[in-house]
Amino acid sequence: MARIEDRGDRLIIWNGNETRRGALTPALYDAINTATKQAQDPQLRAIILTSEGGFFCAGGDLNVLIERQKLTEAERRDRVDLLQDLIRAIRACPVPVIAAIEGGAAGAGLSLALACDMIVSARDAQFTAAYVKAGLVPDGGLTASLARCLPRQLAMEMCLMATPISAERMQALGVVSHCTEPGQAFEQAMKMADKLARGPRQAQSRIRDLVAQAYDQSEAAQLDLERDVMAHAIGAPEAAEGISSFLEKRKPRFP
Amino acid sequence: MARIEDRGDRLIIWNGNETRRGALTPALYDAINTATKQAQDPQLRAIILTSEGGFFCAGGDLNVLIERQKLTEAERRDRVDLLQDLIRAIRACPVPVIAAIEGGAAGAGLSLALACDMIVSARDAQFTAAYVKAGLVPDGGLTASLARCLPRQLAMEMCLMATPISAERMQALGVVSHCTEPGQAFEQAMKMADKLARGPRQAQSRIRDLVAQAYDQSEAAQLDLERDVMAHAIGAPEAAEGISSFLEKRKPRFP
Amino acid sequence: MARIEDRGDRLIIWNGNETRRGALTPALYDAINTATKQAQDPQLRAIILTSEGGFFCAGGDLNVLIERQKLTEAERRDRVDLLQDLIRAIRACPVPVIAAIEGGAAGAGLSLALACDMIVSARDAQFTAAYVKAGLVPDGGLTASLARCLPRQLAMEMCLMATPISAERMQALGVVSHCTEPGQAFEQAMKMADKLARGPRQAQSRIRDLVAQAYDQSEAAQLDLERDVMAHAIGAPEAAEGISSFLEKRKPRFP
Repeated sequence: MARIEDRGDRLIIWNGNETRRGALTPALYDAINTATKQAQDPQLRAIILTSEGGFFCAGGDLNVLIERQKLTEAERRDRVDLLQDLIRAIRACPVPVIAAIEGGAAGAGLSLALACDMIVSARDAQFTAAYVKAGLVPDGGLTASLARCLPRQLAMEMCLMATPISAERMQALGVVSHCTEPGQAFEQAMKMADKLARGPRQAQSRIRDLVAQAYDQSEAAQLDLERDVMAHAIGAPEAAEGISSFLEKRKPRFP
Repeated sequence: MARIEDRGDRLIIWNGNETRRGALTPALYDAINTATKQAQDPQLRAIILTSEGGFFCAGGDLNVLIERQKLTEAERRDRVDLLQDLIRAIRACPVPVIAAIEGGAAGAGLSLALACDMIVSARDAQFTAAYVKAGLVPDGGLTASLARCLPRQLAMEMCLMATPISAERMQALGVVSHCTEPGQAFEQAMKMADKLARGPRQAQSRIRDLVAQAYDQSEAAQLDLERDVMAHAIGAPEAAEGISSFLEKRKPRFP
Repeated sequence: MARIEDRGDRLIIWNGNETRRGALTPALYDAINTATKQAQDPQLRAIILTSEGGFFCAGGDLNVLIERQKLTEAERRDRVDLLQDLIRAIRACPVPVIAAIEGGAAGAGLSLALACDMIVSARDAQFTAAYVKAGLVPDGGLTASLARCLPRQLAMEMCLMATPISAERMQALGVVSHCTEPGQAFEQAMKMADKLARGPRQAQSRIRDLVAQAYDQSEAAQLDLERDVMAHAIGAPEAAEGISSFLEKRKPRFP
C-alpha cells in the first residue's frame, strides 16, 4: 500500500493505494513516519511524497472512519492524533519535503500536501478540502496550513463548501511551485530535489525552521531569532565554502 | 434604512440607505445585531449581507462622525466600540455570513465586507479603505481582516493611500469568491447559501471557528485544536449521515 | 557610497555602491539610520529608498562576511544585529517608506525591500532570497516579511532554493504596488510620495503601526487597538479638516 524508495540522497514515499485513489492507510502512516526519521541521516537531502496510480491522496478511508463512531471521544482523539503526529513529523523533518501531485489531493490528502514545504502538481489536479461533504471538520493541520498560504475568505470557502481549487489557481496564488503536464509532477519534483542536494544541508534545515517560525511569532521575535541563527550559520563550514566559492567564481561543494 | 428578510433557512440583511450609497445607519447596526443573534435558530443556515440601490456600503456617515469631535475620548471609544461589536457579532455568528456586493465597499463598508466569511461581488465594484481621505484610521476590524487576506504591502497601500482595488483583482488574490455581472451578486450569493443549507450545520459552525482560530494561533496549538474538534465531530450524527451517504453513494440528508 | 537627498517633504536615500550592484556598505547603514531618525521632523512625509546604477541592492558584501568567520559567535551576533536594527528603524519610522527598485533585490537587499511599506519596481527586476547560495540563512527580517506577504510554500521555495521571482509575479501576488518600464521606478515612487504628502501625517503614521500590528496579534486584540486609535484620531485636527472638506466637497488641506 506504501513504500519508501531510497535513492541515496533522497527518499521517495510512494502512496500505493491505487484502487482507492490513494486513501490513507496504516502503511502510508508507517512510511511517512519512517522516512521522516530516516531523514536524520546526513546523506539524505530531501523527501518526495507522491503516489502511484494517478491520484495523490483522497484522504481518510471512510470505511475506517465510520467505525470510529463506536469509540469513546478520548479514543477518537487518540486516533486523530496519529494523523496530527504525521503532520508534526513532516513539519519537523530535517530535510525539505516536496509533494508531487497527480490527479488531486482531497480531505486529509490536501492536509498532507499542504504540510509539505513545496508542491509540484500536474496542471489538471484539483485541491479539495472535502471533509465537510462527509459531515466532518478539517484535521491534519489543514486549517493551520491554509491560514499560512491563503486569504481567510478562500480558506473559508474551501472548508465550508468543499469547492475544488485547480492546480493552476493554486500556482497563481503562490501555493504550488510548478504546474506540469499530467504525469510529470514527479519528474519535476526530482529536479527540485537535485537542486536541493547540491545546496547546504545545515542551512536548508535552519531555513525550514526559520520560515515556519515566521508564520507563528511576532516580527520582533523573528528578528531576534534570525540574528541568532545567522550568527551561528556564518561561522559554519557551509558558509566558508559558500562565500569562498562565490568570491572565487566557482560552483560550491558544500561539506 | 435596513431590514431583515427571513427566507426560512437564511436571513437577508438589506442595507436600504440608498440615497447615501449605503452609509452606516443605526438601523443597519440593529439589523446586523438582530440577525446574528437570530442565527442561533437551528433552522437558519446562512446570512447574506447586501444592499438595495447599487452600492454595498460607503462607510460611516460623515455628518454623524463630525459630531463626535465634541465628545470626550472615552465617549468616542464607546461609539467606535459599537462598530467593533458589530464586527465581533459577525465573526461569532454560528452560521456563515456572505457579503453580496454591488457598486463598491468603502471605509467601514469595506470593514463590513471583509468581516464576512465569503464575498460575492459585481465585476465592476471597487474596494476602498477610504478612511485616510477623511483624516481617519481604519476601524471595524479592517486592519485585522486585511492582515488575514492580503500582503502587508498591499494592505499598507490600501490604508495609507486609499487606492481602490477592483473586484477582479480581489478575486485574483483569493479574497472574492465570485465576480458576477453587475446586478447579479445577490443571485450568486443565494446559490452559495443554497449549497450551505444542504450541508452539515454543526460542522460548518465548527469550521468557521477553526478557520478563524488558525489565523490567530501557532501551528502547534492549531493541530491540538483540530484534534479535539474532529474527535467530537466524528462521533456526531452529522458524520454518521455524511459518511454513510458517501459509502452508499447517495446524497446526504444531514440531521 | 550612499547619500540622503532632502527634497523638503521627503528624503531620498540613494544607494550609490554602483560598482558592486548596490551591496550593503556602512555608508548605506548610516544613511538609513539617519534618514529614519530625521523623519521625526513634521515637515517630512515619506522616505524613498532607491539606488544609482541600475541595481537596488545585491545584499551583504561577501568580502566583509567572510571576515566574520574569525569572530566569536557573540561578536557575529552583534554584527548581524546592526542589520536587524536597520530593519527595526525602517519598521518604526514615523513616515511611510517606499522602495523604488531597478534591476533586482537579492539577499539582504530583498530584506531591505520587503521591510519597506510599499514597493515600486521596474518590470524586469528580480527578487531573490540568495542567502542559501552562500551557505547562509536569511536575516534582515526577510522571513518575517515573507510570512506577512506570501504563502509558506513560496517563502520556502525562495529561501531554500533561491528561486528568483519576477517583479510582475510579485505584483500579481500583491507585494509590488506598481511595475514600471525599466528606469522609471523612482519616478513612480515620487508620485506615491506626492500623494502621501497631501494626506494626513498623523493618521498615516498611526495607520503604519496599526497595519503592522495586525499581522502580529489576534483579531480580538486588533479590534481593541483599532478602537483606541480611532477614538483618538476622530478627535484630532486632521479628522476635523478631513471630514469638513468631504462635507464641503473641497480638497482637504491637512494641518
